Amino acid sequence: MNIIDVVNWRYSTKEFDPSKKISADDFSKVKTLLRMSPSSTNIQPWHFVVADSEEGKKRIAKGTQGFYQFNEQKVMDASHVVVFCARTSADEDYMLHLLETEDKHGRYPNEDIKQMVFGARNIFANMHKYDYKDQQHWMEKQVYMNMGNLLLGVAALGIDALPMEGIDMKQIDEELALREKGFTAVGVVSLGYRKESDFNTPNTTPKSRLPEEEIITLLK
Amino acid sequence: MNIIDVVNWRYSTKEFDPSKKISADDFSKVKTLLRMSPSSTNIQPWHFVVADSEEGKKRIAKGTQGFYQFNEQKVMDASHVVVFCARTSADEDYMLHLLETEDKHGRYPNEDIKQMVFGARNIFANMHKYDYKDQQHWMEKQVYMNMGNLLLGVAALGIDALPMEGIDMKQIDEELALREKGFTAVGVVSLGYRKESDFNTPNTTPKSRLPEEEIITLLK
Repeated sequence: MNIIDVVNWRYSTKEFDPSKKISADDFSKVKTLLRMSPSSTNIQPWHFVVADSEEGKKRIAKGTQGFYQFNEQKVMDASHVVVFCARTSADEDYMLHLLETEDKHGRYPNEDIKQMVFGARNIFANMHKYDYKDQQHWMEKQVYMNMGNLLLGVAALGIDALPMEGIDMKQIDEELALREKGFTAVGVVSLGYRKESDFNTPNTTPKSRLPEEEIITLLK
Repeated sequence: MNIIDVVNWRYSTKEFDPSKKISADDFSKVKTLLRMSPSSTNIQPWHFVVADSEEGKKRIAKGTQGFYQFNEQKVMDASHVVVFCARTSADEDYMLHLLETEDKHGRYPNEDIKQMVFGARNIFANMHKYDYKDQQHWMEKQVYMNMGNLLLGVAALGIDALPMEGIDMKQIDEELALREKGFTAVGVVSLGYRKESDFNTPNTTPKSRLPEEEIITLLK
C-alpha cells in the first residue's frame, strides 16, 4: 500500500451499500486506530460510541431528523457508525488516571520523570482552562486530530467513510446520555463500503483541493 | 505496509538527527498529504509554512524562546518544520474561490448542484459564525484533522514527527506576518528522522493508551 494512493482514494462516501459489513478483523483494526491516535500531551480526551446493528444505528439516526435528514440514510446504510465524543472536563481524577495508566504501561523510568509529565500536562490543560478559556475547544481539537487519523487509517484498510458534522449533537447527547457520563458528541463517522451508484468516488468525480502554491509557503 | 504497524510505530520524536534530511521525493509526498486532507464541507481553512533551511528554522524557533525553550532543539534539528496555520476568516471571496476551484476541477455536473454545495457550505460556516460563535475554533478543528492525517501519513513513509503546541503562536504570527495574510499559527510539526539516542521509540519505551473498554462503547 502506498499512502499517497490511499489519501487520493479516500472519498466522502455518499451512498453506502447496506449489504456489506466490515469484518470482525477489520473492526478490531478500526478500534486500534481510534485508540492509538496521538493527542496533545497524550490527554486522549475522547470516547467513541459505535453502532453496528439496526437498533444501534436507529438511535444515532435520531440526530439526523429535521434539518439533518440528508444524513439519515448515511447512518442507516453504513456498516458501523462511530460517534466521536469529547470529554467535558479534564479534572484531577482523570489526570491522575492517565498518569497511573502510563506508569502501569512502563512509560516512566522514575518518579521524577513521572511527576514532570504530570506537571507539564496540567500546565497545558490549565492554560486552556484559565488563560485562553477554550479548554472544551482544545479537547475537541484533539478529537478532530483523531478523526483525521481514523479517516486515513480506514482508507488504508479499504474501508469507505463519511465524516459528518451535519448531526444534531444535542439530540445524540440526550439519546446516548453522554453528558451524564462526562462526554459530548462532536461528530459522527459512518464506515462501510460504497455502492456502485455512488457519484463521489475516485472513478466518477475528481477530487478538488486548492493548488499547492496557494496553501504551502516554503520559507527561505 | 500494514496501517496498524504504522500507527504503532508512530512516536512523538524527542531527538531528531540533524544530519538526516527528508528526500525531495518524500517531501513532495508530505505536501500531497497536507493538501489532500479532508475538511468539513471541503473548506480547507489552512495554510502551511515550511522551513527546511537553517535560516528558515531559526525564524520558526523564535516561537520557542523563554517558556517554550524545551522545543527549540526539536525545531532546529528537524529536517523540515511545518507551521500549521488556520484562516482567520471565511469571507465571501474565499467561499467563491473554493467553489470556482472545485468547478474548474470538474466537481459539478451542473449549475444547480454547484449552487447547492455553495449554499450548504455557507450554512455550516454561518452556523459557526453566527449561531455558535465559534467559527475560528471550527476552522482550527479542521486544521487539527489535517494534522492527524499528516501524522499517520508521514509515519507510513517512515518519517518521524513531533507535533507541538508548546510554541509561542503569537510570536510565530508576527515573525511570519501571518495575521496580515489572513492566517494564524495553531501548531508546529517537526519532521525528520530520530536519533539513535531518542528514548521515545517503539524499541525503547512502550506507548500508553487508555484501554479499549474505557474509550469504546458498543451500542446494543
